[in-house]
Amino acid sequence: MSYPTYFEAFDAKAMLADYPLDLVGAYGTMSTDELRALQEARFATLMKRGWEIPFYQRLWGAKGIEAGDIRSLDDIVKLPVYDKTDLMASVAANPPYGDFSGRGTDPVVFHTTSGTTGRPQPLLFGPKGREITNLLVGRMYRWMGLRPEDVVQSVYGHGMINGGHYIREAVTHFTNSLFLSAGTGIETRSAAQVNLMADFGVTVMVGFVDYIRKLAEVAEAEKLFDRIKLKMIIGHLGTEDRAATEAAWHGAKAYDWYGVGDTGSIAGEGPDRDGLYVWEDAQYLELLDVDHGTPVAQGETGDMVVTCLFKDDIAPCIRFNTHDITHELSGRGALAFKRIAGFKGRSDNMVKLRGINLFPHAIASLIENRSDLTGEYVCHLTRTEGRDDMVVTIESRGGTDEAQLIALLRQGLGVEVAVALCPPGGTAAATQIDSRQKPIRLIDERGV
Amino acid sequence: MSYPTYFEAFDAKAMLADYPLDLVGAYGTMSTDELRALQEARFATLMKRGWEIPFYQRLWGAKGIEAGDIRSLDDIVKLPVYDKTDLMASVAANPPYGDFSGRGTDPVVFHTTSGTTGRPQPLLFGPKGREITNLLVGRMYRWMGLRPEDVVQSVYGHGMINGGHYIREAVTHFTNSLFLSAGTGIETRSAAQVNLMADFGVTVMVGFVDYIRKLAEVAEAEKLFDRIKLKMIIGHLGTEDRAATEAAWHGAKAYDWYGVGDTGSIAGEGPDRDGLYVWEDAQYLELLDVDHGTPVAQGETGDMVVTCLFKDDIAPCIRFNTHDITHELSGRGALAFKRIAGFKGRSDNMVKLRGINLFPHAIASLIENRSDLTGEYVCHLTRTEGRDDMVVTIESRGGTDEAQLIALLRQGLGVEVAVALCPPGGTAAATQIDSRQKPIRLIDERGV
Repeated sequence: MSYPTYFEAFDAKAMLADYPLDLVGAYGTMSTDELRALQEARFATLMKRGWEIPFYQRLWGAKGIEAGDIRSLDDIVKLPVYDKTDLMASVAANPPYGDFSGRGTDPVVFHTTSGTTGRPQPLLFGPKGREITNLLVGRMYRWMGLRPEDVVQSVYGHGMINGGHYIREAVTHFTNSLFLSAGTGIETRSAAQVNLMADFGVTVMVGFVDYIRKLAEVAEAEKLFDRIKLKMIIGHLGTEDRAATEAAWHGAKAYDWYGVGDTGSIAGEGPDRDGLYVWEDAQYLELLDVDHGTPVAQGETGDMVVTCLFKDDIAPCIRFNTHDITHELSGRGALAFKRIAGFKGRSDNMVKLRGINLFPHAIASLIENRSDLTGEYVCHLTRTEGRDDMVVTIESRGGTDEAQLIALLRQGLGVEVAVALCPPGGTAAATQIDSRQKPIRLIDERGV
Repeated sequence: MSYPTYFEAFDAKAMLADYPLDLVGAYGTMSTDELRALQEARFATLMKRGWEIPFYQRLWGAKGIEAGDIRSLDDIVKLPVYDKTDLMASVAANPPYGDFSGRGTDPVVFHTTSGTTGRPQPLLFGPKGREITNLLVGRMYRWMGLRPEDVVQSVYGHGMINGGHYIREAVTHFTNSLFLSAGTGIETRSAAQVNLMADFGVTVMVGFVDYIRKLAEVAEAEKLFDRIKLKMIIGHLGTEDRAATEAAWHGAKAYDWYGVGDTGSIAGEGPDRDGLYVWEDAQYLELLDVDHGTPVAQGETGDMVVTCLFKDDIAPCIRFNTHDITHELSGRGALAFKRIAGFKGRSDNMVKLRGINLFPHAIASLIENRSDLTGEYVCHLTRTEGRDDMVVTIESRGGTDEAQLIALLRQGLGVEVAVALCPPGGTAAATQIDSRQKPIRLIDERGV
């Protein structure tokens, strides 16, 4: 029996025609109706595939939904959303891959999520779904300003985790920039990372901003700034401090984008850095009320729920609730695509502290851009005799007014928290910033 | 200015026609003359490209060679060989990439070697050269017995190093097996590695055999053997112990292959496991006398010097001296390709101990397959008052007769060495077996 190779299993030419690399050329003047028609055609193909997948048959069947009920994107609200918990339940019932993907005889790309919120989750891609995922990042980088003569260093991790492999494919397949797959600080030590930047003339750093900011301190310590010519940082700013990140790298421009392992890139900034454009030719994004699951009013904050219009091969993604929250921006930007504010916290990482909803990630923007603080922090949540308390350990370079900091956090978070200062690097063991894709910011010790 | 994407920069269909995946179908009955004609055509194209590369212009020009002097493979002996030292000199003179590759506007795959013998060396690939490199591994795995229903776990490292990325591409692009990119023990801890094997039904392990053998002990400790269904180990046996490796994994069959970062796979076993077939449609292999650089007589041991007939895009490889030694086997196997014995040591790692040439790697086969030893060892070479001595530290599970071991090594190596026994795991810190692609077996302390 003969099986197609990766290159025979999808039509690269058709993909490049369907998902143009030139965003402005393709979507700069497109009307809302034209965009909607494109989405409807892709959604119809996707739904056909969705009905073939056991996971969706079960999910939709349990709600009594039939194929004829979903005739257009207007009907998508009739479908239940699902999240990582449902996927992991599918894995538990059908180990090890779950029943949310339909694998045939075509090649498969297999990875796991980084397991930020628990046990790693399997991710499966068919060649078409994989390469469009890659393309969405490549064309986004290009639109942001990446040029063929750029040298890109990636600090996304490898191993089983999807991140590093995915970004490597994106840059290698869809930009003509040179790519250095340095990986996390355990794959390439931080001192070696900054020496690579100097030796290979790295102009663009991509990865999680926490670690990229830490590397700036290492570059200072290694006295390498006269040899480093960094001009762009492309990462996930979310609630991170853009100004502090840019200052740490002596004025390199930072760009934000958002995506999760299941969906690939959902939205990213353009060269204007005026909100994150949702790649609406590929991703259908809904913002739903965290408590009720209904669409939020224009401009209000909600859970990002994503349908990947392009993933009609192996693992369709139809109404996946990321539990990451954002709000939509008003007005039209440079493309026909709508814009969002980007990652503003996780609705399921929300902590209720004495009746107040608190997002630990919101602390980042409260302590950013100060010469006395490094911007690194970690929260410990404890329970003593029924009362919950939070201690925020914050790295200080010295000279920090602790009372002022406590007042600042109380005002910003809306609830009283305790502060413990520590020297630079003092939170690294708790946040695992050197080895984790996304540092730990909240340690919940209430159950211990 | 517009640049081709990876998928537009080479012709996948032509590649699959030129380098057939079905080795027996394409090369089972081919005559020596037909094979030579194929090689000559590819060599002519390659030489044309070679003359455009500054490194070769310099290397060949220094010997007064002109393009017209090399009219066929018979003339290849007129060209000087080069090695890693020449490449690193090229990097030193033309940092950071050297002048041994010709980069245009096409995409580039960039990595480094693992730096076994010193500072990491840049490796550049064009899409065509890269994918044929991947294909050579994919079709080799398939011929050895890899099937689409197999699940492959790779313990080759990622980060900047080529190995893990290359094998991931090989399996993903050219086999239809599921691939787990676990990486080294620092990317995925050993206990997690063996749990992955059990959880995901891994049937094939690929990577360096030292670490794969170590994982067998971890699997025993974790009591996972009743859930592990490993049937093949595909790695680099070289001087390693095949029988001990297979026994450690309860009878999984081990397969050997050989290649280096600059060339990709040069030779590998077939299902017959009767020598390593040299992929002569892609690699032209010479065996040269270590001291004089002249071809060795049939069956004699020499340095493997490789010309990659397929790498006519970015970084041609013409008479690269690997300094790895082997000998050719006699008789014809299942293909038109000649067969070699595989990696038998490094000519430049050869140690002269009191006048005798000694290969530290040869110790592996002397201490293999014994219940009292783990097979792990490390050599320390010291100099006291002008006299060189070697101490071989060997891991023992207890009950080892030290005098017998000393006698065994003296007989096998032809020179007296001292032995120090240590408990299982006692050499790990020195060999760095948990973090290195290839463990350190020789620590030369004579210069200290």
